[in-house]
Amino acid sequence: MDALIDAIRHVVGETGLVRGEAVAARATSYWDPAPCRARAIVRPASTAEVAEVLRLCHAAGQAVVTQGGVTGCSQGADARAGELVLSTERLNAIEAIDPVGGTATVQAGVTLQALQEAARAHDRLFALDLGARGSCTVGGNVATNAGGINVLRYGMMRAQVLGLEAVLADGTIVSSMNHMLKNNSGFDLKQLMIGTEGTLGVVTRVVVRLHPLPASRNTALVALRDFDAVTELLTRMQRDMAGTLSAFEVMWNLYYRAATAPGGHRAPMADAHPFYVLMEAEGADTTADAARFEAVLAAVLDAGLIDDAVLPQSEAERRALWEIRENFEAMLVGRETFLYDVSLPIGEMAGYADEVLAAMDATWPQGRAIIFGHVADGNLHLFIQPQQAGATHAQSDALVYAPLTRRQGAVSAEHGIGQEKLGWLDRCRSAAEIALMRTLKQALDPKGILNPGRVIPPP
Amino acid sequence: MDALIDAIRHVVGETGLVRGEAVAARATSYWDPAPCRARAIVRPASTAEVAEVLRLCHAAGQAVVTQGGVTGCSQGADARAGELVLSTERLNAIEAIDPVGGTATVQAGVTLQALQEAARAHDRLFALDLGARGSCTVGGNVATNAGGINVLRYGMMRAQVLGLEAVLADGTIVSSMNHMLKNNSGFDLKQLMIGTEGTLGVVTRVVVRLHPLPASRNTALVALRDFDAVTELLTRMQRDMAGTLSAFEVMWNLYYRAATAPGGHRAPMADAHPFYVLMEAEGADTTADAARFEAVLAAVLDAGLIDDAVLPQSEAERRALWEIRENFEAMLVGRETFLYDVSLPIGEMAGYADEVLAAMDATWPQGRAIIFGHVADGNLHLFIQPQQAGATHAQSDALVYAPLTRRQGAVSAEHGIGQEKLGWLDRCRSAAEIALMRTLKQALDPKGILNPGRVIPPP
Ligand SMILES: Cc1cc2nc3c(=O)[nH]c(=O)nc-3n(C[C@H](O)[C@H](O)[C@H](O)COP(=O)(O)OP(=O)(O)OC[C@H]3O[C@@H](n4cnc5c(N)ncnc54)[C@H](O)[C@@H]3O)c2cc1C
Ligand SMILES: Cc1cc2nc3c(=O)[nH]c(=O)nc-3n(C[C@H](O)[C@H](O)[C@H](O)COP(=O)(O)OP(=O)(O)OC[C@H]3O[C@@H](n4cnc5c(N)ncnc54)[C@H](O)[C@@H]3O)c2cc1C
Repeated sequence: MDALIDAIRHVVGETGLVRGEAVAARATSYWDPAPCRARAIVRPASTAEVAEVLRLCHAAGQAVVTQGGVTGCSQGADARAGELVLSTERLNAIEAIDPVGGTATVQAGVTLQALQEAARAHDRLFALDLGARGSCTVGGNVATNAGGINVLRYGMMRAQVLGLEAVLADGTIVSSMNHMLKNNSGFDLKQLMIGTEGTLGVVTRVVVRLHPLPASRNTALVALRDFDAVTELLTRMQRDMAGTLSAFEVMWNLYYRAATAPGGHRAPMADAHPFYVLMEAEGADTTADAARFEAVLAAVLDAGLIDDAVLPQSEAERRALWEIRENFEAMLVGRETFLYDVSLPIGEMAGYADEVLAAMDATWPQGRAIIFGHVADGNLHLFIQPQQAGATHAQSDALVYAPLTRRQGAVSAEHGIGQEKLGWLDRCRSAAEIALMRTLKQALDPKGILNPGRVIPPP
Repeated sequence: MDALIDAIRHVVGETGLVRGEAVAARATSYWDPAPCRARAIVRPASTAEVAEVLRLCHAAGQAVVTQGGVTGCSQGADARAGELVLSTERLNAIEAIDPVGGTATVQAGVTLQALQEAARAHDRLFALDLGARGSCTVGGNVATNAGGINVLRYGMMRAQVLGLEAVLADGTIVSSMNHMLKNNSGFDLKQLMIGTEGTLGVVTRVVVRLHPLPASRNTALVALRDFDAVTELLTRMQRDMAGTLSAFEVMWNLYYRAATAPGGHRAPMADAHPFYVLMEAEGADTTADAARFEAVLAAVLDAGLIDDAVLPQSEAERRALWEIRENFEAMLVGRETFLYDVSLPIGEMAGYADEVLAAMDATWPQGRAIIFGHVADGNLHLFIQPQQAGATHAQSDALVYAPLTRRQGAVSAEHGIGQEKLGWLDRCRSAAEIALMRTLKQALDPKGILNPGRVIPPP
């Protein structure tokens, strides 16, 4: 087997290869501090090197797991013993920013934040945004079709990608570096790589859209008495802020209390409200947009739809509000936590959450179910913290997914299936759908070397 | 061979089958009045019937061409002798409109206009819109990933589709009727059907997004002196109308003159301006939006960016302006016309158009090249009218595509490849990309019975 490693070393050089102790010195992932178990980590420095490495692995039948920032939430990039990690960490060049054409061209290992900043330096917005921005990579964002906080206005990663280059399992380079907004000249092959979690190819380069940098940004944290008020507020904001509402993040009471508990974030308002919404609108006119935002807020306050509101008076205050929503590390420390990412129709959400909370009380009365999410997109996240010895992931899954599948919800809105949710895919996808996924996998990776045991359940 | 027809008749009944003279009584397409040459037209009334028909055709190796409204611009649905047409004309039920969830569920044969009207009846907008709305079908819109006049704001058909059901070549029904805005639970299989022009399956049902019906709509026709002014205007409108600009349609002088020639549309302004732009913004606030639109227009007029402007004072006047852009029938009558649909970076457009116009003067001095399009999306349409006996389609293609491929443009922005552009696909897609298209085709339709000879060039 070392013949393969030698051949790979020949391609990527000594710097391109991490072995032995240095492998175990890395964590499994952002979420799992256990030592990485890969047999080696390969760090190609170009598309050609990726292609050559895959060609060798394909010939040897070597399982390969692609790693970007390893921030993914479904263990897709977590290496198992015997697997080879292909890391994109050296594919980190920002190749071009074209502010006029509104595109950026980057290698797959560029972090989301680096891309955002490069765009901003040219007065342009790269619209995808999520809490892991400092570590997650553009390639990982493509592979997971990442969502985040601005989906409402700009769509998921799929909507940002114009073109990409990928290497197939056998080392074939397929370059589809389209820069145009519209191109119906033949199949749109990039769709094969977006959201398929690295099972059909390794993304090496990406062309994304850039948007004009919004001139104005208006933010508010508001408190509401029930979920009906939340949906009513969403409808009003979407209508009255026509096209400019860019974030609408809901936190159930328990989330807000956990985030603002002693030692955590400063609470900008009382912590007894059933629901909190952090919302933001981005527009073109600093004066008029602020006036409109405040007028709409005043109207919903007058109408009794919201019970309290805080408007940040500075960028620091604005960041502090966002920290409440995005920085939830403190509430995870020292507690076993199972993370979920479900989607279901907005009309079903309140009933669904109540059912989970009730099941939680019945099963693990000491524990807590913390619920929050991108409600406008039909997407909730849950932290299930049993606080009870012997509590299992399977029990937690049953608690969360049983009421979900009854409502035709999906087990992943944005995090993907990975290894973690493999056993649950058939709850939200039909046998014919899963068979078609297998047909695609068979056609593009007949030896099954790319991210094996992820996404597609074994027959 | 009649055993097959008999078996099909058994499935779809006598009403489900059109044969003999009745076939020839139909036109080849909207664009081609020649008699339809199919050996029969099958009109299944349900997904189950589609599945059974395809199962029979698959077993018999019978070529099948799917037809929606037959308005497509690249001969994808035009039947050749010996081919069987599968028409979706009886799959025309609007199954559900859910104004709260913001979705519509329809059968594939529903016309675009019927869907738009059903949504409007529930105070919702189905955002795709194009001139053929009265005849083209939702299934055809999916298969061609149709674009149209609102792409700027709402995206192409791909962005409207949440879920769909399709029948594969062998009769397997794959139902992916997702209703959620976000769903990363496994591969997003609908992408296989969107924009693949019926080569990978027959779409039978579709779930689409609905948007809030905009309260305000502001429209203007403006005249400009050069293309730089056009791009500058676009930048200003996109910035200042943040998120609400929904259409920005450019007409070169020749288009405007041809459309408003005697016997055609009434000219709302002088016909000597080099460029005309029809633009529209949709918002939430009838009073404020009109004020803003007019203020922005006044500013660009003051700045000398536009040379004339007409604002419609009624819906009838607004429709009359749109007729100029959408109803171009008169300028095609009695002249041989080759239609194009190219995309290229906006920065390249002016130079490209000038080159085509110069080539036209050199090649066919009696003829005319009429140029217009969805410029904000990087998409131009061209009518090449040689006005010379013996002029060939191939000559016209060379005239239009030679300067295009030098600029890395694409031979189809929205119309697709069909049969017409098959020979040109390799000008804008690499050998590796075309090989991957073949891999997909082979995996999903190994006998090649669906829309053979379309989209994918023979090896
Ligand atoms: C604090 C925090 C907040 C988060 N918030 C959000 C959120 O709001 N929305 C959201 O969608 N996600 C969120 N995530 C999840 C995560 O950030 C995203 O899934 C992200 O897109 C993963 O990028 P990555 O580079 O870390 O990918 P990795 O974790 O390295 O990999 C994820 C998957 O993609 C594959 N992959 C990675 N790179 C490539 C490549 N170049 N080619 C092919 N396959 C590849 C891997 O094999 C794996 O299957 C959050 C994570 C954290 C830690
Ligand atoms: C006046 C006019 C204006 C137009 N403007 C635009 C425009 O602005 N933007 C634009 O994008 N297009 C435009 N078009 C082109 C055309 O309307 C679109 O391509 C439309 O989406 C085709 O729909 P259809 O139902 O007529 O499809 P057809 O012409 O019947 O078929 C088109 C292709 O789709 C396949 N197909 C059809 N139905 C199905 C199905 N159910 N399952 C699988 N495959 C199927 C066919 O086999 C064929 O390959 C215009 C056409 C006209 C006549």
